[in-house]
Amino acid sequence: MNIDSVDLFYASMPEVTLEADGSQDALLVRVTAGGHVGWGECEASPLTSIAAFVTPRSHGVCQPVSASVLGERIDGPDDIARIAHAVERNSMDLLQAAHTWSGIEIALWDLLGRIREEPVWRLLGYEESHAKIPYASMLFGDSPQETLEHARTARAEGFRAVKFGWGPYGTGSVAADADHVAAAREGLGDDTELLVDAGQIWGDDLERASLRLESLEGARATWLEEPFSAHAFGAHAALAARARTVGIAGGEGAHSPHMAKNLIDFGGVRFVQVDAARIGGIGPSKAVADHAARRGVTFVNHTFTSHLALSASLQPFAGLADHRICEYPVHPKQLALDMTAQHIRPDASGEISAPDAPGLGIDVDLDALAPYLRDVEIRVDDEPLFASPMPRRRTPRVNAVA
Amino acid sequence: MNIDSVDLFYASMPEVTLEADGSQDALLVRVTAGGHVGWGECEASPLTSIAAFVTPRSHGVCQPVSASVLGERIDGPDDIARIAHAVERNSMDLLQAAHTWSGIEIALWDLLGRIREEPVWRLLGYEESHAKIPYASMLFGDSPQETLEHARTARAEGFRAVKFGWGPYGTGSVAADADHVAAAREGLGDDTELLVDAGQIWGDDLERASLRLESLEGARATWLEEPFSAHAFGAHAALAARARTVGIAGGEGAHSPHMAKNLIDFGGVRFVQVDAARIGGIGPSKAVADHAARRGVTFVNHTFTSHLALSASLQPFAGLADHRICEYPVHPKQLALDMTAQHIRPDASGEISAPDAPGLGIDVDLDALAPYLRDVEIRVDDEPLFASPMPRRRTPRVNAVA
Repeated sequence: MNIDSVDLFYASMPEVTLEADGSQDALLVRVTAGGHVGWGECEASPLTSIAAFVTPRSHGVCQPVSASVLGERIDGPDDIARIAHAVERNSMDLLQAAHTWSGIEIALWDLLGRIREEPVWRLLGYEESHAKIPYASMLFGDSPQETLEHARTARAEGFRAVKFGWGPYGTGSVAADADHVAAAREGLGDDTELLVDAGQIWGDDLERASLRLESLEGARATWLEEPFSAHAFGAHAALAARARTVGIAGGEGAHSPHMAKNLIDFGGVRFVQVDAARIGGIGPSKAVADHAARRGVTFVNHTFTSHLALSASLQPFAGLADHRICEYPVHPKQLALDMTAQHIRPDASGEISAPDAPGLGIDVDLDALAPYLRDVEIRVDDEPLFASPMPRRRTPRVNAVA
Repeated sequence: MNIDSVDLFYASMPEVTLEADGSQDALLVRVTAGGHVGWGECEASPLTSIAAFVTPRSHGVCQPVSASVLGERIDGPDDIARIAHAVERNSMDLLQAAHTWSGIEIALWDLLGRIREEPVWRLLGYEESHAKIPYASMLFGDSPQETLEHARTARAEGFRAVKFGWGPYGTGSVAADADHVAAAREGLGDDTELLVDAGQIWGDDLERASLRLESLEGARATWLEEPFSAHAFGAHAALAARARTVGIAGGEGAHSPHMAKNLIDFGGVRFVQVDAARIGGIGPSKAVADHAARRGVTFVNHTFTSHLALSASLQPFAGLADHRICEYPVHPKQLALDMTAQHIRPDASGEISAPDAPGLGIDVDLDALAPYLRDVEIRVDDEPLFASPMPRRRTPRVNAVA
């Protein structure tokens, strides 16, 4: 069978703030082939990713993503890899292509899994979907006292691992950062894993990052995530060499499997965090997971959006029993919860698993999604290149507030 | 003064083919501040890059490029670096941002240079603009005989260095590739430098690439360019270790200065080729040039479009006397020639230089550009996000043919 259509749905909360919260909007992808349907999601700027799908070509290796996808044969996983290769080549000079393609790739795995009535992790060659320990991801408080309270709450909710990040961390003094980290440890008690996310705050400034190692190791932090820009491998490696007990983590910015592997091979990370919805989908994520396992590095998903994206990002390491920790969007925006009919919930022991169900095991709820949809229209030389597949006139916002 | 406006002009040839020829379209950037004007160019998918400028924000670090640019103070080079840092942070998760920002950054240098009546290379700290040896860039012929003829023509035109690339190279047998390379050398004679561009054809397949080394070294090729994917640093380094006389070249795909520096530090390239219109502009290109010089690596511009882009990509290494070779678009499409009032031509000794004139020393000819302009309109929820700054109803193409 062949790919008959690719529909892109841009949804967002009525208000999108400057929080570092990726669940405020979404770009969903629906692929149809031979009467079957699969769904995926891009963790990416929706409008820009839509443009990368429909843009007029610039030359032979700067073609729109659509050129390598529409009409292509899709009978099995090898076809996904073949199309991925075509996108990589034909859209070589179209930077956004990897983000657009990620959601399509995920939808193709979902589609194949539904046809074969197999979960995607089985199509990837895994025999089993091993349970993971979800960590709660939250922002540092504005004050250490607030961080302490957040930590206590997360512990009370039963999380065995908690990540604090962004907010004031890294922007002020070394002592202020140390206070936050100590407060987090105090609130979590002795038995909860503490993870810290610096959100690339130090650019490639090794010295500023190094000054934080003492407080992180004093608080027995498991990892320090994204101390530097995603491409600053040398700085990552130098910091990893200076650290004694805390591991360096990173990888969410990877938009090709090479980039994540480089962070392992040249950046010295102990944890590689891959977002399937950015790196090119599930296939490239699995390649990174294999590489990580060979190198003794722990693979972790990056997910801050919906449970469709969560399922997609769990598949690549579902079968790796020793890679235990996983990111779990604990308090996403309502959009991210409403858009799917099923949700991946912690079991009695507080662990989560990639669903044992066909495809990704998550159905998109189009009715629930409808109020969040945004109408996009792109025209070049008066010809329509894109119009949203389910245009919906919503109540004007000013009335919604009144 | 402050940045008052950023206008994006999408221009293209009437027909855009599948050739690997980046001069078939263009995204020009006009920036105004305090009544002054500067021009830049993105070497990027125009529609996608426009979308990255105007897209609604997704969250705090996935903001449109416009959010970090419009209204910002611009009094000197430090302001360009400050805005670049803001774009990097605020658009961290917007992959296309680097390509959009590149053209704006170039326009800001042009604007400052025109105000100060200094060429950009002087603002970068160089005392002199040293002449470069332009190499002619051409496609391999369909047959070795055709390659031979192309080589003879280039030599007759007086070029002291010629690059062959793409076409059949790397797609067939090792022997066929060897025939093409030998034909190129034969046509060029003994004294002309031969450069070969594989256009990423081998992905990360070290063995397939290695099989070509013998014929390249037999023909005394100076470099083998882009044997692998832009991020495949390990494969680059392994091939560089196997090569004896031919240097590995690459870097045109770099969309951050770290990425180009990594290709030097981890990829073992002997030539780093930077496109200012992709890597984030002139400032990041200069940082790579400095790094290359420290590491004993030769900096080369990548330019396949207009003479505005050529001037921009010459500035970062204009003052490096020992970095002699430069890419020169010999037969670009008419659009790339028509869009500027001045052109950078070889002097009596066949060499070219970054202009000794204010800014980039190249004026955009808006009247000549007009017939090539394309009208873009982007609407979200019925609100216009973008409309081309100089809409022009061209004669319908069917009539133009009649």
